[in-house]
Amino acid sequence: MSKAKGNLAIGQSGGPTVAINSSLCGVIHEALAHDEIGEIYGMFRGIQGLLKDQFIDLRRQSTEIIKGLRRTPSAALGTGRYKVTPNDYERILEVLKARNIRYVHYIGGNDSADTSLKLHKLAADAGYELHVIAVPKTVDNDLCGTDHCPGYPSAARFVATAIRDSGRDTEAMGPASPAKIMEIMGRNAGWLTAAAVLAREDEGDPPHLVYVPERPVSVEQLIEDVKRCYEEREYVVIAMSEGAQEAPGKTLGEEYAPKEVDAFGHRMKGGVSDYVAALLRGRLGLKVRMDKPNYLQRSMMICASPVDLEEAYRVGRQAVKEAVAGRIEGMATLIRDAGPQYHCSVGIASLEGIANREKKLSPEFMNEAGNSPTEAFLSYARPLLGDPWPPIPYVRLAKYFV
Amino acid sequence: MSKAKGNLAIGQSGGPTVAINSSLCGVIHEALAHDEIGEIYGMFRGIQGLLKDQFIDLRRQSTEIIKGLRRTPSAALGTGRYKVTPNDYERILEVLKARNIRYVHYIGGNDSADTSLKLHKLAADAGYELHVIAVPKTVDNDLCGTDHCPGYPSAARFVATAIRDSGRDTEAMGPASPAKIMEIMGRNAGWLTAAAVLAREDEGDPPHLVYVPERPVSVEQLIEDVKRCYEEREYVVIAMSEGAQEAPGKTLGEEYAPKEVDAFGHRMKGGVSDYVAALLRGRLGLKVRMDKPNYLQRSMMICASPVDLEEAYRVGRQAVKEAVAGRIEGMATLIRDAGPQYHCSVGIASLEGIANREKKLSPEFMNEAGNSPTEAFLSYARPLLGDPWPPIPYVRLAKYFV
Repeated sequence: MSKAKGNLAIGQSGGPTVAINSSLCGVIHEALAHDEIGEIYGMFRGIQGLLKDQFIDLRRQSTEIIKGLRRTPSAALGTGRYKVTPNDYERILEVLKARNIRYVHYIGGNDSADTSLKLHKLAADAGYELHVIAVPKTVDNDLCGTDHCPGYPSAARFVATAIRDSGRDTEAMGPASPAKIMEIMGRNAGWLTAAAVLAREDEGDPPHLVYVPERPVSVEQLIEDVKRCYEEREYVVIAMSEGAQEAPGKTLGEEYAPKEVDAFGHRMKGGVSDYVAALLRGRLGLKVRMDKPNYLQRSMMICASPVDLEEAYRVGRQAVKEAVAGRIEGMATLIRDAGPQYHCSVGIASLEGIANREKKLSPEFMNEAGNSPTEAFLSYARPLLGDPWPPIPYVRLAKYFV
Repeated sequence: MSKAKGNLAIGQSGGPTVAINSSLCGVIHEALAHDEIGEIYGMFRGIQGLLKDQFIDLRRQSTEIIKGLRRTPSAALGTGRYKVTPNDYERILEVLKARNIRYVHYIGGNDSADTSLKLHKLAADAGYELHVIAVPKTVDNDLCGTDHCPGYPSAARFVATAIRDSGRDTEAMGPASPAKIMEIMGRNAGWLTAAAVLAREDEGDPPHLVYVPERPVSVEQLIEDVKRCYEEREYVVIAMSEGAQEAPGKTLGEEYAPKEVDAFGHRMKGGVSDYVAALLRGRLGLKVRMDKPNYLQRSMMICASPVDLEEAYRVGRQAVKEAVAGRIEGMATLIRDAGPQYHCSVGIASLEGIANREKKLSPEFMNEAGNSPTEAFLSYARPLLGDPWPPIPYVRLAKYFV
């Protein structure tokens, strides 16, 4: 370690995904390859681990454990949602100096990019040499500066798998229980909800309707959409973003959200899909069923995209490479090659253009009616799922009635 | 077809599972092997298909499609929840006679066994020779007369997989978001909820608490349980049956179910886990997160148990074998060998002991405190998941703090 220029601290932040540990593995593997890097510290529960000087020694982990991170969901270091304030700056610098930390890698989304940017500025202002290279991660896929975000492809694969299977269930129930809503993560961005269309194989397959925050639909249009779909095939499956809107800035049915408080004085929680379910029962007389897979979307490893796990690993390595090569601040990125063959290379972008920004679902990715993603979206998203997709081939009986 | 004694009608009933098509495949494969059987009719959407004389010709399906049923979730014939009444008897006999149906196989749970029994009695009373051999299916696992029910092992595998993965997510969030409730199917029987314990690998792994309808727990005990678990490890994961009770016959918090009506005059639906979440927020000040995978529990093929798919196929075949051998009524069953090595053979039981009965989770399968299944349950349920279990090995970092 005599050649070491300094130590490295790596943290995980925000909601876990199935791929964030793969990025952690990438950071560790790359760090192990550079003599400039001394100790490899894991922040326990994100930036708070740094503030509390709670670090896990990553050099002492067995190679088996480090390798196993690539197929372990959730955040192995623990994570958190703490937002750094100027009050923390002195303490941060103190710990960085005391530990001789010269490399910081923070894996996360917009907020984490902001934290990384703050650390960079703080160190720069203090004249303390620090390389802060963030690693992207979010199932929301809303980070600027990168083709897509590690974590998103696997969550997309989960959503598509879930809609495909639960959609078959609704198809079989037919008129007995004809409508299903699956509520999908992404309060401000529809990327993950849009991924539901990847479930479609044959004409008429679920999901029949897809609603995202970026494309508000009026209550009347929604009812019309559902009615038409139901009349066409006696069942209807809806992929509904938890943040779907009826007008810009107005979540569907927000004025009908239950005002009653529970036994403890807390307001009952009623989401978009609860409202829409009530709407469809009331206006169309349909029995409506709901799936709320919630945290399974970001944790179910058996649905992980192999493309995602690999890319998450590569951006982790890339972050360390950039730091060791002298880059002072940035976020590792994925850059997609032009052309029909899917390939992404890794790159780097400045944190200034990323921190606190949100990349919304592009307008050309939703159809005119605002109720289904387009072919352009399919071209964008399909390769991210990896192969084989679908994971298991299904059949339908030929409807030879006798 | 000159040797044919009559035609066969096969139907699927109630909630679909990932294995019910495997049973359908078993019935078809076995039927194809017997010259006594002429046409093979699939009832379109359960018993209503018979009532409406809507049948799908299963002999005309390609062998590829029939084989593909073994890995296709949901009910390929369509299903329903129609309950036969005496008003339907004449019509049923009429269709049976007109179609010369001599073999009926109905795949389903308690209600379907009841339907099968009615068909048997109806035909017997009319002096019409009819072989009615039901095929068991239910994720609730609450059928009498069989060691377990096809469909249950796969749903159990889903639940265990989901708790394992979502539990890791909660572990990583720690104090930031420390409590998670997964709501699990089974309004009257706790078999599926109990399967959550199959997720445990290491001491202290989720789920930390498991509540089933058969073992009511008082609100105070529940709060004590959660408090203790949270204090032990800074997070707590709860597997909660949708039918968990606080006293015999009294669902947890049923008097707190929201009384407010929605915009359309319908009462808002609030389940057990919504109540318990409010309880834990109010009494312990914990942030609580929820997963409601609902229909994914019975449809997610990627989580299917290989043992289940195979057994479902075998009970389908068994039903036909029994019918062709002359048995007039019954349900195909699974009979577990004694001893440590898991093996089930197929058998037959009379419908009289099965129709409309429910097999509750055995008392010895829950611990004294009523908050966790026992080793005896693990021995019962573990072999049903098949191998490899867990599907993917995960790691944890060694907590070497520096």
